[in-house]
Amino acid sequence: MPAGTRFESGLVLRDAIPEAHKVALTTIPAGAPIIRYGVTIGYARTEIPIGSWVHEGLLALPEAPALDELPIQGGVRTHSAPLEGFTFEGYVNDDGTVGTKNILGISTTVQCVSATVEYAVKKIKAELLPKYPNVDDVIAITHLYGCGVAIDAPGSEIPIRTLRNLSLNPNLGGAPLVVSLGCEKLQPAQMLPGSTLPILSSRPYVVRLQDDEHRSFGDMIQAILQMAEQRLVQLNVRRRLLVRAGATVMFSEVTEVRDAIHLLTARAATPQVAKDLIREMAWYDRYLERGSVDRSANPTPGNKSGGLANIVEKALGSIAKAGTSCISGVFGPGERITCKGLVFAATPASDFVCGTLQLAASMNMHVFTTGRGTPYGLAMAPVIKVSSRTALAERWSDLIDIDAGTIATGEASIQQVGEAIFHYILDVASGRKQTCADHWGLHNEFALFNPAPIT
Amino acid sequence: MPAGTRFESGLVLRDAIPEAHKVALTTIPAGAPIIRYGVTIGYARTEIPIGSWVHEGLLALPEAPALDELPIQGGVRTHSAPLEGFTFEGYVNDDGTVGTKNILGISTTVQCVSATVEYAVKKIKAELLPKYPNVDDVIAITHLYGCGVAIDAPGSEIPIRTLRNLSLNPNLGGAPLVVSLGCEKLQPAQMLPGSTLPILSSRPYVVRLQDDEHRSFGDMIQAILQMAEQRLVQLNVRRRLLVRAGATVMFSEVTEVRDAIHLLTARAATPQVAKDLIREMAWYDRYLERGSVDRSANPTPGNKSGGLANIVEKALGSIAKAGTSCISGVFGPGERITCKGLVFAATPASDFVCGTLQLAASMNMHVFTTGRGTPYGLAMAPVIKVSSRTALAERWSDLIDIDAGTIATGEASIQQVGEAIFHYILDVASGRKQTCADHWGLHNEFALFNPAPIT
Repeated sequence: MPAGTRFESGLVLRDAIPEAHKVALTTIPAGAPIIRYGVTIGYARTEIPIGSWVHEGLLALPEAPALDELPIQGGVRTHSAPLEGFTFEGYVNDDGTVGTKNILGISTTVQCVSATVEYAVKKIKAELLPKYPNVDDVIAITHLYGCGVAIDAPGSEIPIRTLRNLSLNPNLGGAPLVVSLGCEKLQPAQMLPGSTLPILSSRPYVVRLQDDEHRSFGDMIQAILQMAEQRLVQLNVRRRLLVRAGATVMFSEVTEVRDAIHLLTARAATPQVAKDLIREMAWYDRYLERGSVDRSANPTPGNKSGGLANIVEKALGSIAKAGTSCISGVFGPGERITCKGLVFAATPASDFVCGTLQLAASMNMHVFTTGRGTPYGLAMAPVIKVSSRTALAERWSDLIDIDAGTIATGEASIQQVGEAIFHYILDVASGRKQTCADHWGLHNEFALFNPAPIT
Repeated sequence: MPAGTRFESGLVLRDAIPEAHKVALTTIPAGAPIIRYGVTIGYARTEIPIGSWVHEGLLALPEAPALDELPIQGGVRTHSAPLEGFTFEGYVNDDGTVGTKNILGISTTVQCVSATVEYAVKKIKAELLPKYPNVDDVIAITHLYGCGVAIDAPGSEIPIRTLRNLSLNPNLGGAPLVVSLGCEKLQPAQMLPGSTLPILSSRPYVVRLQDDEHRSFGDMIQAILQMAEQRLVQLNVRRRLLVRAGATVMFSEVTEVRDAIHLLTARAATPQVAKDLIREMAWYDRYLERGSVDRSANPTPGNKSGGLANIVEKALGSIAKAGTSCISGVFGPGERITCKGLVFAATPASDFVCGTLQLAASMNMHVFTTGRGTPYGLAMAPVIKVSSRTALAERWSDLIDIDAGTIATGEASIQQVGEAIFHYILDVASGRKQTCADHWGLHNEFALFNPAPIT
């Protein structure tokens, strides 16, 4: 809105205010708190006259909440009553999880085999997949880990368990295939220890390229195709079954909740959950400190031009998106989720690293909100893209699945848009509708989180 | 060789000795040095009787050479006389570099656009490339950097300059195209500052997906295709020209030279070159220390079963492969090489991170030795794979370009195999021969080195 705009309340804009930015409703004295969502998001560096644009440069960043002074919820909270009458058609797995897709996944222990597995996957898609029409896709779980890394360093458990749990994602039917080179640091038995996961010991499928039996590149490809076809036969007989709606819902991104973590610990189902939240915050504080930065490194130029003054304001928005339910569990980066309800899966905020860790956590459906637009997508799980602005949804009509900008324009209530998203989730999870990202085949690479050094 | 094997010298093997492993030629007292390549690679933990297998478990790791006590070469060394009478046919660039391929490269500022650019590249290859037969390939320079990272942290200059210099690789003809999202932390002007590189200011091509002019995904793809076609027209008129042989040769991998760095500083062309070597070693020592590991994290299970007892022995082998020429320059990770002769491009030892940084350093031809075998390949530069064992070259005959195992079997001299590699390089650089990796299209992803935290 241009400077000089006059409101019914008598407020007159001193500055031009960009869309979604903030305006001072009263004159704010120097040093006074700037409050949004009921929380101080900064302190005025100088007096801010009424009607001014309250932008990043005017705000001093408050300290992050001290981790030793947070509210720890003492008793078990009651969960919301389950919704009745909603179902979807999913692929029920032996381990109790449910897939929304029926995908053949090929895991890899090391980046050396990536190009070979990609070559094999192209051939599988062209020559085998058409014979197995109930299988949705074939994907190579390739990555940049497995060798040339400090495999025993503090933090190395994160990429290793991420690879293990990616292989066990519900959309892959729970029985991994593995391609290994042979001489790499991350050996198949370390990536997928059979003892910890009974499902693996009974169905181990591994091709090791350096084994003597492979007497050419052609041999290696044949071995991978043969292993893949055995699995395609199994996957092809699976059918979608009616499943009662009732999900585990996760939210993530440590640096985007750190500055309002007191709002989350207060929602913990048990004191242990609150302590687990604090443990993950503390781990990330140290990780950033080791790299000589802090959480203020987070907001992007896009965040800032979209109206977010700093990481505190961004955190409050993230937490608002996580609703009001109590938090029933906390999982470290790359850990598989083992409980129901609303859980916090600790991850960095980088979309791709977060998405990869959420897939490892066992995500089978992704709802992704965007204000400025991103052509993000994942091969392993459907990504429903929700636009927070109608202008974006209209401009990128073939990339945005749901326009939530109608809330801001007053055309729809939060409740109505929430229900539309819920029904769309059920449709996509049942294979009745396809996301824009899947329509175009926009599937980003996996991005592992490896806080340990490379060598 | 089995235990009990008797040699003409009178030596009798006490243990079975695996191929390429070491045997004690005399009884070595506890605490005595084990010497290879004239250097102590370890100290005997216990007495090692004559004829024993000298394996990793028997050796105590020596300290790495202290960085403040290294020989600093005082005077300028003379370089070897240039070879006369050899030429190849390359693509001469405006900046004085020479390409061995004629590739259209599309750079990206951020991982958000990767899947979109991959989609566009498939379309370019199918619809445009056939019209421009003198262009060898179209590649997307995709990566996992650009946002969700601490862009101002110490060390962040490494991934940023790597992306810049990858865009300027000689095989891309020296004029980058860039696809950006819009709201990312790494903006095109930071990735490719026109002021530092005159070549860029005159030929800037950037598509920004969030710009208002793109009114759909289809629009974005059209914009990328249009930009690509302008560049294809320019690349298509280029012709291979006769170039006098005379290369800049680089070697790399800090952790694989660290333990014998005194052998390299002694070969420095000037004291400054020696100091630059020491600077890069010190940087990496600190990087590993920050992650609570040291250079002993390097050798792989494959290295060890291949006979390397520890990182000292591995380092000596690496340095042996770097020949005897004096070292004329040292470049940090991702820096572009600006001098002739033998240079050290500091990189981690991870094949993929190293390869990516060497491409940024302006590598246009890669010679890759392997003992156990890896199906490694790069899209941006030909990778000639040299096997150190004949058994591997025979088993992987469609993946190994040159068998150097003939040196160990006595069928050929080092000189003869060296000449064979040299002539093969000239053939591949001239487009007359194709490497196995290029034949199969085995092209690994770029792997950026980002020592800074992600957020």
